[in-house]
Amino acid sequence: MSDSRWQSREAGVTSYDGFFADAIARLQEERRYRVFADLERIAGRFPHAVWHSPQGPKDVVIWCSNDYLGMGQHPKVVAAMVEAATRMGTGAGGTRNIAGTNHPLVELEGELADLHGKEAALVFTSGYVSNQTGISTIAKLVPDCLILSDALNHNSMIEGIRQSGTEKCIFRHNDVDHLEELLKAAGPDRPKLIVFESLYSMGGDVAPINRICEIADRYGAMTYLDEVHAVGMYGPRGAGIAARDGAMNRIDVIEGTLAKAFGCLGGYITGSAVLIDAVRSYAPGFIFTTALPPAICAAATAAIRHLKTSQWERKRQQDRVRRVKAALGAAALPVILSDTHIVPVAVGDPAKCKAASDLLLSEHGIYIQPINYPTVAKGTERLRITPTPCHEDIMIDQLAAALVDVWNRLGLPRDKLARAAK
Amino acid sequence: MSDSRWQSREAGVTSYDGFFADAIARLQEERRYRVFADLERIAGRFPHAVWHSPQGPKDVVIWCSNDYLGMGQHPKVVAAMVEAATRMGTGAGGTRNIAGTNHPLVELEGELADLHGKEAALVFTSGYVSNQTGISTIAKLVPDCLILSDALNHNSMIEGIRQSGTEKCIFRHNDVDHLEELLKAAGPDRPKLIVFESLYSMGGDVAPINRICEIADRYGAMTYLDEVHAVGMYGPRGAGIAARDGAMNRIDVIEGTLAKAFGCLGGYITGSAVLIDAVRSYAPGFIFTTALPPAICAAATAAIRHLKTSQWERKRQQDRVRRVKAALGAAALPVILSDTHIVPVAVGDPAKCKAASDLLLSEHGIYIQPINYPTVAKGTERLRITPTPCHEDIMIDQLAAALVDVWNRLGLPRDKLARAAK
Repeated sequence: MSDSRWQSREAGVTSYDGFFADAIARLQEERRYRVFADLERIAGRFPHAVWHSPQGPKDVVIWCSNDYLGMGQHPKVVAAMVEAATRMGTGAGGTRNIAGTNHPLVELEGELADLHGKEAALVFTSGYVSNQTGISTIAKLVPDCLILSDALNHNSMIEGIRQSGTEKCIFRHNDVDHLEELLKAAGPDRPKLIVFESLYSMGGDVAPINRICEIADRYGAMTYLDEVHAVGMYGPRGAGIAARDGAMNRIDVIEGTLAKAFGCLGGYITGSAVLIDAVRSYAPGFIFTTALPPAICAAATAAIRHLKTSQWERKRQQDRVRRVKAALGAAALPVILSDTHIVPVAVGDPAKCKAASDLLLSEHGIYIQPINYPTVAKGTERLRITPTPCHEDIMIDQLAAALVDVWNRLGLPRDKLARAAK
Repeated sequence: MSDSRWQSREAGVTSYDGFFADAIARLQEERRYRVFADLERIAGRFPHAVWHSPQGPKDVVIWCSNDYLGMGQHPKVVAAMVEAATRMGTGAGGTRNIAGTNHPLVELEGELADLHGKEAALVFTSGYVSNQTGISTIAKLVPDCLILSDALNHNSMIEGIRQSGTEKCIFRHNDVDHLEELLKAAGPDRPKLIVFESLYSMGGDVAPINRICEIADRYGAMTYLDEVHAVGMYGPRGAGIAARDGAMNRIDVIEGTLAKAFGCLGGYITGSAVLIDAVRSYAPGFIFTTALPPAICAAATAAIRHLKTSQWERKRQQDRVRRVKAALGAAALPVILSDTHIVPVAVGDPAKCKAASDLLLSEHGIYIQPINYPTVAKGTERLRITPTPCHEDIMIDQLAAALVDVWNRLGLPRDKLARAAK
């Protein structure tokens, strides 16, 4: 082997580091090396946070949080965490089997099954893990399963599909006709699993859930729906887009997260009792990992219960979203429009996307992280804005002005005409 | 396809459930269907807990927790969680990149790097994920990497190796000669990664870390060491077995958990700055998942800091372990001996292992879950006891008496002679 870094091990250098340095250099060349901002959230003052900048702490406004409804600072949710930590301690103490099944976790799973109108629910340490080990386990337990996967599915779903070792077909994003072609080609006798999302988080677009369910029924396919960017925010009880669209009971497995609109940590799947029991019994990423702490479970349960009845957060979020879209549209900024709470603004270049984010933070006290490859396709780099119920009118005006300033300074194109929000 | 359950979809039944029912039936036939006990820990009274039994709540003593030092109820640790939740809320709000890098997480990573004497650390949502995405990412970034893996490595490491897609060789458990053979056969020019654990949790045995490091040096291999069952408990500052054995600076990557002796949730790796930066930048299971909440990070940091200086918990744990081994040995129970805090008692049959656990819980108020396949090999089923600093003398006497009763009732063999603990 000719690599000199590797050979230098002979001289006592940790030569393997050369490979990792190369990997970092590749990212820097492509202008997609990421620097994480060190932020300190302030309960009660969200979306305000303290940014621990190289020059010391500064007050900033966060405009890209996935704590979409600000539930992470809701007094009921914080109180539930504090109470459970005080009563039961900080950790679960083991895997679900090794003394880790704590009472608040059992209650949480009951709450989630009820939320989605399913027989049972199973909680994982993250939404990522729920997709990865959930999809792979389900697909492995169905003999000769063919997976049909939307082209824009999240990395956690792709990893789950890959881990299943099952044959897969990719259908064009939200293209029901293409999905139907593939289902038809698979033949009626083959078990089929359609894996898709309700709300795609980087563009804010929504799947035609009812139409997908219709053809799933027609061709005898099972359906697995990721609602992580929708739970808490859509439907009369916050169960998501499928609930809003009257399609919840047509979906076999609904997957969701506790870490976004519910303000905590963890992921879950809901479905029939027997399916949940099988995943519980076979999924390695579930069996061999420590359970969620009681304090996290209690906080999540408090958030879910609150959002089952309170409409205020959902209405206020939608109102804020409309106002942001209107303000950015009036400023002729290139908003990628959708019907949802995600407001992406197109940049189309990784270096400028990073520069825009840096300028917003350092000069305007606004935190919006750049979204570059691999999170989105190259050439579609963007800033992704998520208005919450906690964003005030004046913050929206400041955001629009700051973006215009940054767009001008970086020579980024604005639309020819200001436009109204969709 | 002839499967009638599948065909019944035509009649409107959710036919896929038949596949999942089959999967459950297979487990039941093999007597390894698991039922999780619904437990409610009581901070300040650990190892006491409330068991929510079918007949209502009952007080039980937990003898199998991985909260090895009871730090999950330590006043400093609980206070840190409560304080951070109150100040910063319950969740991180996003991935590390999407506003999720919170200040307590940055501090925690600094604390972990210091603990292991490494340049940097990276925190994941679980130890499972740290191994899975950590090993697979490291191996993928090293061209033509050959992984050498101990035969008894944890499922999370096996999944990480599998996901890397890299060639692997399995060496016999803790067999340095076999490992050397494989390293030699691989040739000097090929990059090699040795992946192993310091303390194997189901038998309590320990790896010959220094000898493995010697041959890693000789053959130019990189080393990745899982210390999840050792951090907090071994070494003068709780950095683990490698620290105790003076081998910490010889290991390239040390992986650990925050969910066992540190009493919280999450996992981590530590290593050179450039390696950590590369994993941070490339690992999908890190990039695409929500960060740990500030309250969890603050609690973990409090536990680590406490255990860096306090020797009381470690000394008291070892004292309790000696006493348990002596009591069970005197009762001629088949303890699998080791030098560590894990006290496995051999059963060797999955149905009897489950029955023993059930009897202990229902009749003696003692919770020790059965350890059956796939956690251990078939035929080596066991009860796994983990004494903590919180277990009093009287609990140990009650444990020994209860085990003798259960052993007699199930006709399980006891040793011919009582024996002293090793």
